[in-house]
Amino acid sequence: MSKPVLIVGGGPAGLAAAHSLGAVDKPSILVEKENRLGGAPILSGYAKLVPTDEWAKDAIGGMVARVENEPLVQVETEATVTSFTGEPGNFSVTLSNGNIFDADAAILCSGFTHFDSVNKPEWGFGTFPDVVTTTQVEQMISSGNGVRCPSDGRKPNRVAILLCVGSRDRQIGREWCSKICCTVSSNLAMEIREELPDCHVYIYYMDIRTFGLYETKYYWRSQEEFKVKYIKARIAEVTSDGEHLIVKGEDTLVKRPITIPFDMVVHAIGMDPNIDNPQLAETFGVDLETNGFIDVANCYGAMGATSRPGVYVAGAATGPETIDDSIAQGHAAAMAVLSGLKSEVSKSA
Amino acid sequence: MSKPVLIVGGGPAGLAAAHSLGAVDKPSILVEKENRLGGAPILSGYAKLVPTDEWAKDAIGGMVARVENEPLVQVETEATVTSFTGEPGNFSVTLSNGNIFDADAAILCSGFTHFDSVNKPEWGFGTFPDVVTTTQVEQMISSGNGVRCPSDGRKPNRVAILLCVGSRDRQIGREWCSKICCTVSSNLAMEIREELPDCHVYIYYMDIRTFGLYETKYYWRSQEEFKVKYIKARIAEVTSDGEHLIVKGEDTLVKRPITIPFDMVVHAIGMDPNIDNPQLAETFGVDLETNGFIDVANCYGAMGATSRPGVYVAGAATGPETIDDSIAQGHAAAMAVLSGLKSEVSKSA
Repeated sequence: MSKPVLIVGGGPAGLAAAHSLGAVDKPSILVEKENRLGGAPILSGYAKLVPTDEWAKDAIGGMVARVENEPLVQVETEATVTSFTGEPGNFSVTLSNGNIFDADAAILCSGFTHFDSVNKPEWGFGTFPDVVTTTQVEQMISSGNGVRCPSDGRKPNRVAILLCVGSRDRQIGREWCSKICCTVSSNLAMEIREELPDCHVYIYYMDIRTFGLYETKYYWRSQEEFKVKYIKARIAEVTSDGEHLIVKGEDTLVKRPITIPFDMVVHAIGMDPNIDNPQLAETFGVDLETNGFIDVANCYGAMGATSRPGVYVAGAATGPETIDDSIAQGHAAAMAVLSGLKSEVSKSA
Repeated sequence: MSKPVLIVGGGPAGLAAAHSLGAVDKPSILVEKENRLGGAPILSGYAKLVPTDEWAKDAIGGMVARVENEPLVQVETEATVTSFTGEPGNFSVTLSNGNIFDADAAILCSGFTHFDSVNKPEWGFGTFPDVVTTTQVEQMISSGNGVRCPSDGRKPNRVAILLCVGSRDRQIGREWCSKICCTVSSNLAMEIREELPDCHVYIYYMDIRTFGLYETKYYWRSQEEFKVKYIKARIAEVTSDGEHLIVKGEDTLVKRPITIPFDMVVHAIGMDPNIDNPQLAETFGVDLETNGFIDVANCYGAMGATSRPGVYVAGAATGPETIDDSIAQGHAAAMAVLSGLKSEVSKSA
């Protein structure tokens, strides 16, 4: 059990996997292409996470610190894997920084890429400065500067959050649902109302997917306690009358056109497959599923198994995923690695 | 590391936890109140599972066999825990069958209880024999007998599946969403259409929550390939005209009353907290959350931690959960146990 496990990606899933392996005295090498660990919650500056209400910098920051303090985890930032050859129990890994090492397995925790809203031009992002993304609103909140209109720094009186931007949208080749945007948007709506009690917040939706126990805490609480308004609608376009942003669409519950002025429009951007996935697939010899996420086998045998023996996957690399489930999958993939190595040993014994 | 870990419940989460612990040579004692392992998918006779399309008896049956063949797992069926005392690393456990043993931690994988449709009497279950539950349809399919009307054994020509029976329903004290019923129902609708190509299948919904990658495989595929019809509606009642079942409600997209006759009406029943939870909470000294599920701490530290140190929880015991996520959480909780024990050791060293 002396060879390390290669972990690709230092977000929630990768941090969980590295911690788990350390807990059972198995070394790992955690390779992160950015200059620090934490993944999207840290690198994109998320504010309070669902469903715990803990600040991302504390919650995920704590996971980073735990891994950085674990002697059995070797962290390689600003590095990518350029070559990965061999067999389970005996892989050879080369990094972009020139480091070469052996590994007995790999876990791909390479996450997702945020949808780029310029690919939905009719909804105003890139044209109007006060059309922003959920990630930008998270940053406004986590920075402590508060939610302000980028054009002039004023406090918005009316905010629209548009769900499914880059999700459930065949026109732009993204049929999947990004799973957590409904809940995150409900949470952001409450955060905005908390900071700006006079601000009206509307959420435009197709279906509200605050699944499981999120229903009470986000969907109902946002309406009843925070007076967030939900409109089931198809959005046609976001324009401007020079003073306000104008959201035009059809209210699908009353089958009537609906046009409302806003100070700020927020795109609830979805999760694309990581733009590195084609490269990762080639380097690691793993299959991608039809949308471009990393294909994962059923979970009844080895959790997180890919098409290549000895290579596992966890978290949003497999498809849109919550942080909680990414963490669970990271731990579970670590276990699958250990279980797989054990059966390799018993086969060769 | 010689003391075993107590695992309560032999469903997907408990089977995953037991397997994981065995993989790192840690013994466990798996206590199941029923006379065999497998949990809801086996005991309730589920058919093909989402999202893998594998038969429950193969998928979960394989997990059962793996645990039963693991020498480090001691299985105790038809048993419950009657006493659990002590501290992390040193618990004393008494079972209803008289067995007494020490354990250094416990993982509660006690799952959920299916909603009992008699608690929604206006929707016809218990009154009309051809009003059935999703679980009953699963059993019709998994038994190989096919989908038939219980009243006379005929093949139904028209089937309605009503979503959110026992979910998102404040009138009956169940505000939560049961997370997976939308996807399971889409899948069942396709199964029915596959067996009975002339049968029309309607799904009555509030919001369709085929989240993540389920969107393509279930929501769109069921409509486009299998011609399943989705109606956004509020159901008022299910009655009978003597010949057919009559589903009455309001189509919320056109704001008009809608009354359609069916041969069979299927309740997509939700997940209640396990009816044993009050007893489990007392025996193990753990808190329940507001709906009666077992309360779980945030996942950034120890995954699956409860309010009592050394006692962990995984799967649908924590709230409505998918099988995949239950399995991931089972593995992750096993890791949390090992990590917790390691830090106990380092504290006492």
